Amino acid sequence: MPNGPVHLFVPGPTNVPDAVRRAMNVPQQDHRAPDFPELTLPLFAGLKKVFASETGRVFMYPSSGTGAWEAAITNTLNRGDRVLMSRFGQFSQLWVDMATRLGLDVICIDREWGEGVPLEDYARHLTEDKTIKGVFACHNETATGVTSDVAGVRRVMDEAGSGALLYVDAVSSMASIPFEQEEWGVDLAVTGSQKGFMLPAGLSMLGVSAKALEAHESATMERCYFSFADMLKFNDLGYFPYTPSTPMLHGLQCSLDLLFAEGLPQVFARHHRLAEGIRRGVEALGLSMCAVSPQWYSDTVTAIRTPEGVDAAEVCRIGYHRYRTSFGAGLAKVAGKVFRIGHLGDLNEVMCLAALASAEMSLADAGAKVELGAGVAAAQDYYRSALEAEAVLGRTASASPQ
Amino acid sequence: MPNGPVHLFVPGPTNVPDAVRRAMNVPQQDHRAPDFPELTLPLFAGLKKVFASETGRVFMYPSSGTGAWEAAITNTLNRGDRVLMSRFGQFSQLWVDMATRLGLDVICIDREWGEGVPLEDYARHLTEDKTIKGVFACHNETATGVTSDVAGVRRVMDEAGSGALLYVDAVSSMASIPFEQEEWGVDLAVTGSQKGFMLPAGLSMLGVSAKALEAHESATMERCYFSFADMLKFNDLGYFPYTPSTPMLHGLQCSLDLLFAEGLPQVFARHHRLAEGIRRGVEALGLSMCAVSPQWYSDTVTAIRTPEGVDAAEVCRIGYHRYRTSFGAGLAKVAGKVFRIGHLGDLNEVMCLAALASAEMSLADAGAKVELGAGVAAAQDYYRSALEAEAVLGRTASASPQ
Amino acid sequence: MPNGPVHLFVPGPTNVPDAVRRAMNVPQQDHRAPDFPELTLPLFAGLKKVFASETGRVFMYPSSGTGAWEAAITNTLNRGDRVLMSRFGQFSQLWVDMATRLGLDVICIDREWGEGVPLEDYARHLTEDKTIKGVFACHNETATGVTSDVAGVRRVMDEAGSGALLYVDAVSSMASIPFEQEEWGVDLAVTGSQKGFMLPAGLSMLGVSAKALEAHESATMERCYFSFADMLKFNDLGYFPYTPSTPMLHGLQCSLDLLFAEGLPQVFARHHRLAEGIRRGVEALGLSMCAVSPQWYSDTVTAIRTPEGVDAAEVCRIGYHRYRTSFGAGLAKVAGKVFRIGHLGDLNEVMCLAALASAEMSLADAGAKVELGAGVAAAQDYYRSALEAEAVLGRTASASPQ
Amino acid sequence: MPNGPVHLFVPGPTNVPDAVRRAMNVPQQDHRAPDFPELTLPLFAGLKKVFASETGRVFMYPSSGTGAWEAAITNTLNRGDRVLMSRFGQFSQLWVDMATRLGLDVICIDREWGEGVPLEDYARHLTEDKTIKGVFACHNETATGVTSDVAGVRRVMDEAGSGALLYVDAVSSMASIPFEQEEWGVDLAVTGSQKGFMLPAGLSMLGVSAKALEAHESATMERCYFSFADMLKFNDLGYFPYTPSTPMLHGLQCSLDLLFAEGLPQVFARHHRLAEGIRRGVEALGLSMCAVSPQWYSDTVTAIRTPEGVDAAEVCRIGYHRYRTSFGAGLAKVAGKVFRIGHLGDLNEVMCLAALASAEMSLADAGAKVELGAGVAAAQDYYRSALEAEAVLGRTASASPQ
Repeated sequence: MPNGPVHLFVPGPTNVPDAVRRAMNVPQQDHRAPDFPELTLPLFAGLKKVFASETGRVFMYPSSGTGAWEAAITNTLNRGDRVLMSRFGQFSQLWVDMATRLGLDVICIDREWGEGVPLEDYARHLTEDKTIKGVFACHNETATGVTSDVAGVRRVMDEAGSGALLYVDAVSSMASIPFEQEEWGVDLAVTGSQKGFMLPAGLSMLGVSAKALEAHESATMERCYFSFADMLKFNDLGYFPYTPSTPMLHGLQCSLDLLFAEGLPQVFARHHRLAEGIRRGVEALGLSMCAVSPQWYSDTVTAIRTPEGVDAAEVCRIGYHRYRTSFGAGLAKVAGKVFRIGHLGDLNEVMCLAALASAEMSLADAGAKVELGAGVAAAQDYYRSALEAEAVLGRTASASPQ
Repeated sequence: MPNGPVHLFVPGPTNVPDAVRRAMNVPQQDHRAPDFPELTLPLFAGLKKVFASETGRVFMYPSSGTGAWEAAITNTLNRGDRVLMSRFGQFSQLWVDMATRLGLDVICIDREWGEGVPLEDYARHLTEDKTIKGVFACHNETATGVTSDVAGVRRVMDEAGSGALLYVDAVSSMASIPFEQEEWGVDLAVTGSQKGFMLPAGLSMLGVSAKALEAHESATMERCYFSFADMLKFNDLGYFPYTPSTPMLHGLQCSLDLLFAEGLPQVFARHHRLAEGIRRGVEALGLSMCAVSPQWYSDTVTAIRTPEGVDAAEVCRIGYHRYRTSFGAGLAKVAGKVFRIGHLGDLNEVMCLAALASAEMSLADAGAKVELGAGVAAAQDYYRSALEAEAVLGRTASASPQ
Repeated sequence: MPNGPVHLFVPGPTNVPDAVRRAMNVPQQDHRAPDFPELTLPLFAGLKKVFASETGRVFMYPSSGTGAWEAAITNTLNRGDRVLMSRFGQFSQLWVDMATRLGLDVICIDREWGEGVPLEDYARHLTEDKTIKGVFACHNETATGVTSDVAGVRRVMDEAGSGALLYVDAVSSMASIPFEQEEWGVDLAVTGSQKGFMLPAGLSMLGVSAKALEAHESATMERCYFSFADMLKFNDLGYFPYTPSTPMLHGLQCSLDLLFAEGLPQVFARHHRLAEGIRRGVEALGLSMCAVSPQWYSDTVTAIRTPEGVDAAEVCRIGYHRYRTSFGAGLAKVAGKVFRIGHLGDLNEVMCLAALASAEMSLADAGAKVELGAGVAAAQDYYRSALEAEAVLGRTASASPQ
Repeated sequence: MPNGPVHLFVPGPTNVPDAVRRAMNVPQQDHRAPDFPELTLPLFAGLKKVFASETGRVFMYPSSGTGAWEAAITNTLNRGDRVLMSRFGQFSQLWVDMATRLGLDVICIDREWGEGVPLEDYARHLTEDKTIKGVFACHNETATGVTSDVAGVRRVMDEAGSGALLYVDAVSSMASIPFEQEEWGVDLAVTGSQKGFMLPAGLSMLGVSAKALEAHESATMERCYFSFADMLKFNDLGYFPYTPSTPMLHGLQCSLDLLFAEGLPQVFARHHRLAEGIRRGVEALGLSMCAVSPQWYSDTVTAIRTPEGVDAAEVCRIGYHRYRTSFGAGLAKVAGKVFRIGHLGDLNEVMCLAALASAEMSLADAGAKVELGAGVAAAQDYYRSALEAEAVLGRTASASPQ
């Protein structure tokens, strides 16, 4: 069945819109040319708008998101610094692992995979321990489909009078669900190109607050590739300390144009609508989510528990080989127990229905007792009324090809 | 909702596979270069394989399919020649119209839109009237989703001892459902690039039998652009009398590679499977098809009658604007009464489920009483067992990205 | 040496700019969609601007330029009509051939290959013979690099009081050198996509005056594919009687944007400048041109005579195989005697210098006594001062990548 | 003059061949899919072939080449380790800077910009100081157009009985001029995608010897993003510890196919031929090179000294704005004194002649007294005879478009 595109429902890399693919298909160019800043300076401005950061800056690294995690740490902390982290999924776990390897003194709070950042625990630690230099939060745990309350983290920090920096992994949330770097007092906000920005992997973005920039000046970890210092020297002129990938920069320009043309609030609303349809479908199939309660539901990825006795990895395999659909596998602790539907980026309702239809068949083939079409119907019902409401509000743009 | 690709379910142009789009994205080149035939000669050979024509030739015109209709007529007939045609949909009607405008003496048999070529009537006319020079058949009437029996037309011609040439419109059948130019004794087989060949419009192909080539020599209609004579002078050397679109030729090369890699029998089987799922879905929704009985069901396009009181044009409008789906509108006589789902070319099962899901919502929004998800479920059920059977037979290739 | 792009200096197809290639790389779309006219209507308007036609229309055919030649004739003339034509190169010859085959009564004036439309002869015929229904002129004979005086043809027609229609082949002149359909009283202006429009082949354009549209109503040649009637029914609504190639339409949109952004006068000035440099180079090499005197020099293509004893076909072969350069071969009467450098479309000065450098080496390898670098130096000298003058006038846009 | 492509002659990023651009233009895909290794495993094998490394491995990082510099250091050395480096251009200087910032104890030998790695000095240091843990060499200094003798470095290390690791910056040499990781005993070989690999920037490659892998196990620098450990866990299975850029991987696949189809020895021979032509041209213009003697001449980039009183930066500006040509600017110490012509990657002879022609005009416009065409003529002369010799040897492939 190798016909038609693979239906891509991993939570990143996400589908790159045709317009972005076109924008990226450019000849190479001199990254030191006099007019190069005409391309780059608007990108920095656009990113600040997406991060909702007025007074900070956004750096772009030729790296995966992991690189920006490291940049955030090495530029602002010293070896041995005490930091507060929590772990409830594969990606929050990897960040904890990195912090440890880079020589930080990590207080790691473990939570069930399916919960998010534990505000009460954070509050307690911050109140008790005034040596904490950094507080880490995974905004959207991609492995479990859990969104945490970053504004809440800031609140407990403030209530505890903490002067620590706030580090947020926004890899699978940025440009998809609301994010307010300035308002939430996020000092280091990490994201990557291959999720809400609808680009291939390879470019990471790091939103840095004024306070973090200050911290950078006295931070003593050795660093070079990820050093803020080199960026600061070049970025304001529109250049980079390294050879950037110009196709990625052109792609980003297009991606920002698309995001702003739709409007960030509309982008967030659409992600919520698409996600809610998926969830209605999952519920209608009698399945439960990895996220243990609605407060944690993520609007960018849904991790679905397979029924007892049904191997979630087999669901993925069948989806991929038989129905030409890429679902996200369960990772680490939840391997074999969940499969994931990524629903972020360049998606529409009918694509989400296709995901559900494919998931239903894959589940059935893997031995799950699900009623074919039931999930689709529940989502259809929701989408019809949600789009009806949108239309009444005059917010639904009429579709135009391209 | 201008996100994600438009779900394209018109019966042409069809989706161009990514590989074909890539293949077409080439620099321009000299169409008189010494090595140009390395590109073109295999195309002629490949087309003959698709047309299943051993002893004839296939011409490629820079034109839409309509151009090849005209080429077929003007190269082999004389003004005033009597021809036998039938009309049961917008495209068979247009061919009749062309024949009339080009000065042929047309015997036109009208049938209900939803039926196909009337073999008995053809038999009667051919038996009674020995002056008929051309017999025309629309293999797949795209407007109504009706496939006719071309082998049957040849049979009644032979039984009547007719020496006429057989002209077949295979625009929306070629490379999608079985077609046997040689075996069926088709003298002029017309098709275009934008259907089963999965290319943009702009290239028409005309399969010409040895007998038709002979007829060409004495045919007296004036012609130049579409003349076989110029083609005959250049094609065997790998060149064209006009400047060809080299991107289209590169695209065709890729398209042929894809068709042969899948295997024509497998391509036909897939089209049947996809179509059958769509039909199961339509039936489960309680709707009827424009094709009046199963003998006429087309495996490349299904025309669906909307319930009494439901405007099919409105279904299309809603599908397009609200659900980002392009369905084919009803044309001419069946405008407002049917909408069409094209299911040919680069498609897979989950895409067809998306079409059904979108159609269900569009129908419901337009006022039809349909049970959401019911059509999808019926198709899912069919696809699951059909693919299971395929898998057992070891015929389902494992999906590989790209 | 299969590295780097082939240096394409045939006089069409020309280089497709990267922006146009990007614009063409779109998913397929429904050509009957409600918003399709948003794409197409501006194209009709843009084309009228390029043709400089206020009161007429421009039709677009899915065909090569040859098709538009045929459309011009079959829509406005009757079989047996007397027409005045001239022949002085392969393309003017082919049009004469077509007119004959389509049943016109052709008065054909032959001129040396290297001259253009003979105004005095036209004047004489038009004065003497009042039955002439059509006057044909090849604006730019691509085979010999000769530009004729179309305004002059109109003048002699007017002076002779001729009521004939004026047919102009502007295939290799439109969008490259000045063309004024309205001012020059051109009734049928033929061009194609693969020259000044910088697109692949496959789309022809036909500018039709109000007078020609009127003639169409009473013209009796049979026609269907190329009929104005069907176009007239659809075009004003933004649709086509056939399935158009939407990639070509998107490409045309981009091409028009590029032409208007540069400005048509600037486009013409650039073509003149590039051509003049090539001619200076040719002269510096001691070679002569096929165009017999400066009044005929074409700004889009230069046909260069090889010295006695040097096979021009060999120059092309060497250029292609050894120096990865496509020159235009000499055709028909001048085969082996001339090779051609096309210098139209998306070109700049340094590309033209590359053409000269490659031609010098190819000539030398083929046995010509040329001083390497001499042609390049003469062209450099000219380009330097011409661009200096442009810069002084503030007309040279600063280059920006992409 | 914003027509035609910019003539790109910076020494990276280099022109991406059309085939590679096509190969990169793919939909996103799941980098954890079961068949993903079918794409990746041949890449690792192909890279080892290019690096000429039998017993080591090649890691790919989503980073610029700078990242691989850092990876080489942090994975194999300890803070405070003594290393031997040399500095004779901007890039060798930056590596020294990095080593210092990462806490190494750097012995830095400065040489005139225009010379290369000083073998005698290295020999002396290595003989005198047995504590040296790492020896660094910049194989091709991109800023000055200087190639150093890496085999020679290994020789002096061996002669001195040094057990140090050998670190080589092969960013602008790999896949362009001979490189033999195994034979030369290079332990860490750094390169990037945007030079000889003809890809956009964004992917760095690091060839690691068996000895370096061993050193990695006991090296104590903190590292995470660039850690070999994570790569070792995933690479052999065909996966990565981070989300890779799949377009870059597809591009690399195509790039390797192109390199091996041409043949690495042929690639090297072509680079030498193209470079030699450029140098002949420079000499014919009476200019000198930054590389102080032929032993240092680089076959991938030529840095040209402008005559006294002529600002090299102005040459670049004029080239860029007036002649649509990107030359490399002089950097740091040689800013304003040299401009550079990169001649590596997907280039052919005529492109190099275009570079020379453009340089001649830019130089003249900037006030240099150069004879227009003289450089071109010298290069033409050389290319003619060099290609003649190639043809005699039957090594010149006939050009085929695409």
